[in-house]
Amino acid sequence: MYDIIIIGAGPGGYVAAERAGRMGKSVLIVEKENLGGVCLNRGCIPTKTLLNSTKLYKQAKNSAPYGVYAGDVSFNWDKAMSWKNEVVETQRNGVSFLMKENNVEILKGSAELLEGKRISVDGKIYEGDNIIISTGSAPFIPPVPGSDGASVVTSDEVLELEKLPESIAVIGGGVIGMEFASLFSNLGIKVDVIEMMDEIIPMMDKDHARVMRREMKGINFHLSSQLLKIEGKKLTYLFGGKEESLEAELVLMAVGRRPNTGSLKKTGLDINKGRVVVNEKMQTNLPGIYAVGDVTGLSMLAHSASRMGEVAVNNICGIRDRMRYNAVPWAVYTSPEAAGCGMTEAEAKASGRNIKTASVLMKHNGRFLAEHGKTAAGTCKVVVDAKTEVLLGVHLLGGISSELVAGAAAMIESELRVNEIKQIIFPHPSLSEVIRDAVWAIANAGRKQASCSHMQPKE
Amino acid sequence: MYDIIIIGAGPGGYVAAERAGRMGKSVLIVEKENLGGVCLNRGCIPTKTLLNSTKLYKQAKNSAPYGVYAGDVSFNWDKAMSWKNEVVETQRNGVSFLMKENNVEILKGSAELLEGKRISVDGKIYEGDNIIISTGSAPFIPPVPGSDGASVVTSDEVLELEKLPESIAVIGGGVIGMEFASLFSNLGIKVDVIEMMDEIIPMMDKDHARVMRREMKGINFHLSSQLLKIEGKKLTYLFGGKEESLEAELVLMAVGRRPNTGSLKKTGLDINKGRVVVNEKMQTNLPGIYAVGDVTGLSMLAHSASRMGEVAVNNICGIRDRMRYNAVPWAVYTSPEAAGCGMTEAEAKASGRNIKTASVLMKHNGRFLAEHGKTAAGTCKVVVDAKTEVLLGVHLLGGISSELVAGAAAMIESELRVNEIKQIIFPHPSLSEVIRDAVWAIANAGRKQASCSHMQPKE
Repeated sequence: MYDIIIIGAGPGGYVAAERAGRMGKSVLIVEKENLGGVCLNRGCIPTKTLLNSTKLYKQAKNSAPYGVYAGDVSFNWDKAMSWKNEVVETQRNGVSFLMKENNVEILKGSAELLEGKRISVDGKIYEGDNIIISTGSAPFIPPVPGSDGASVVTSDEVLELEKLPESIAVIGGGVIGMEFASLFSNLGIKVDVIEMMDEIIPMMDKDHARVMRREMKGINFHLSSQLLKIEGKKLTYLFGGKEESLEAELVLMAVGRRPNTGSLKKTGLDINKGRVVVNEKMQTNLPGIYAVGDVTGLSMLAHSASRMGEVAVNNICGIRDRMRYNAVPWAVYTSPEAAGCGMTEAEAKASGRNIKTASVLMKHNGRFLAEHGKTAAGTCKVVVDAKTEVLLGVHLLGGISSELVAGAAAMIESELRVNEIKQIIFPHPSLSEVIRDAVWAIANAGRKQASCSHMQPKE
Repeated sequence: MYDIIIIGAGPGGYVAAERAGRMGKSVLIVEKENLGGVCLNRGCIPTKTLLNSTKLYKQAKNSAPYGVYAGDVSFNWDKAMSWKNEVVETQRNGVSFLMKENNVEILKGSAELLEGKRISVDGKIYEGDNIIISTGSAPFIPPVPGSDGASVVTSDEVLELEKLPESIAVIGGGVIGMEFASLFSNLGIKVDVIEMMDEIIPMMDKDHARVMRREMKGINFHLSSQLLKIEGKKLTYLFGGKEESLEAELVLMAVGRRPNTGSLKKTGLDINKGRVVVNEKMQTNLPGIYAVGDVTGLSMLAHSASRMGEVAVNNICGIRDRMRYNAVPWAVYTSPEAAGCGMTEAEAKASGRNIKTASVLMKHNGRFLAEHGKTAAGTCKVVVDAKTEVLLGVHLLGGISSELVAGAAAMIESELRVNEIKQIIFPHPSLSEVIRDAVWAIANAGRKQASCSHMQPKE
């Protein structure tokens, strides 16, 4: 009998285990593969590690405008892969250490949820006062003819590629698809992206998404296009009512992920549209059974899963806490990067709010100009409530947007108003100043003249 | 007659002019050199632009562990300098545009402050309802024999160097000295730093400063050393009561900057120890006369000057505002970078507060590991009030600390507590998570077990 049994050791599960262990709870965590889950083993960490290598390659080849000349730049996929593996292994050991440090018992195996707050693993039964389900998700492969072909892979397999393809077609222009598209494009490989919707990366501001596509010069985008079939290297898709086709050596399926609920169905657990239904305390319909992370389908991001894990543990321990989704940042580690937190302009309008927005171009920021040049795209857009002037959303494209968004998350979570943000001192010269400048642009818009940048007007 | 006359168009003056112009005030700004002041023309912007070029050079040469091989990497100083000049020029045009956009009148010339809220420029008198002094500061050259030699330069001249030296001695291990030391060291040039104090960069956490020195392998540090004389290439300094010497082709004097008060002395303005004395509204002892930026000697940073400019303008316009120094971030763009905001551990202790601190190593952060490798140094230390658990300080060494510190400034300015920061969701995997992990380490320290990192314990 454990205080808490956790099924799945991804960023939802292992963070929950750490927090619970630290609070003195007896914890069993069951994992059928590796500690760290998809994020660490086949998601965020390996992807970002490889992306970084490809960015270094691109940068080494393109630093002449800054006075740096490199002849003979080459990319060694094996070396990049072995570094990626080393990073994953190191981080995995970190999670293992963390579990030991907090007296969390680790069990390797596939867990099945049984009635009465019990699970079975390899025929053995374990019982807990509470169970946290964090079984994650898996890539979804659409039922398209040919999608079982040898050239078709998901993000799982692409991270184990033995050699680089000459060309790749990425099916799905969401976060995962775009990161891999960028990764291969950074290396000069021909990339086609086929996306059913009329724009890439659904969570992005539409203006930003359009600019991002324009910046990704090496990628051919096929929007509003539906993949029909794969025959060898030939992909046929429907665009504007007509069949078109393209060729690619490798096909990456990145149309989405599905919650892993297969092992949860024997218990009366409320599963709706393939997702485990939870309330804001991460409680399911069954007493003592919580679910966190991708399996809830609510916010399929590693850091959301971790926060959900904390919320679940706090509620188990009698500490008031609830999951909120209004200040969850996201980031895409493409070239250029994009990130955001809170409501987009479109979402805020759709919610019926009266809002104000302002944008600034990053090229008017001294550091951005110095480090990215005169022609690189970059924007920061902020969304505030027109009446209260509370910050609702910050949306970034360009530079190291992925690192700036944490500050935005802190401001949105703290419900800061325009006048409060105006008093925060941002370091100069830093790219972070764009957030301040966009907020000032909101403030200025009410003045005599409207301007959209600290340095220069919007273009 | 103007509503506001501003003396000096640096980041204090031009931001004040922009804000005041936008509020409909008639503004005259007087500048004897270029718009943008030291920061834009001979400080932050050119330095960071050149530093970036040298970082790209270093990176192109050292990316093999990530799978990127570049043969024949070379650095072209002329090209880097011309890019630096282009960035400065572009930004200067930005300031010029901003002045026009806000109907700010620009006068080129040297202003002298007269009694009765008047100034004279080239013999002509101008009068304002208010005057904002933002005359900035200039490099201080210590009265050391030989300091007028041909090989001795300040930060002004080093930014105009026609060719790279073979070796350089940097006198002063503060922010300016260390940035140039890093710049030349990144290019493989022999660098010696002579510093009177027993540690570099006074505002840094002492633990961090020590690690930073250790990371700067190409730089020879001579701490607790006093420069005695310069004879040609030979520098003699006193260390431990004994005279020692070293040789350098170029000597950079970076021992500090002095407020420019020469043009302010005819008026009864309160100047103490070379600094114009101001209150928290940036008012001097003379009615209607304000001072902002370096000339006050209070916080000699560009972004402090800008904020002071805003405070002065707000007070002139009858908007309540006051300058606070508890959440002023700073950043050093060295390799590795360092940054901080709020109280250091030592400052907090000296203030008599009961505090808690925690540190995490960046190498346990997934993104840091992926992008900086296993051996790179990096730390985040947080300081909180033991009783209230309000965040007092965040101190960063490594990675892109300079961009993370804005988020820290927002948290400190908002007086967030540990429990509030624990609920902020940081994007994963991002370096920004180190701030969260350090705050969690504070929270955890009160629990059953003490740990200093999200991933692993302190080493």
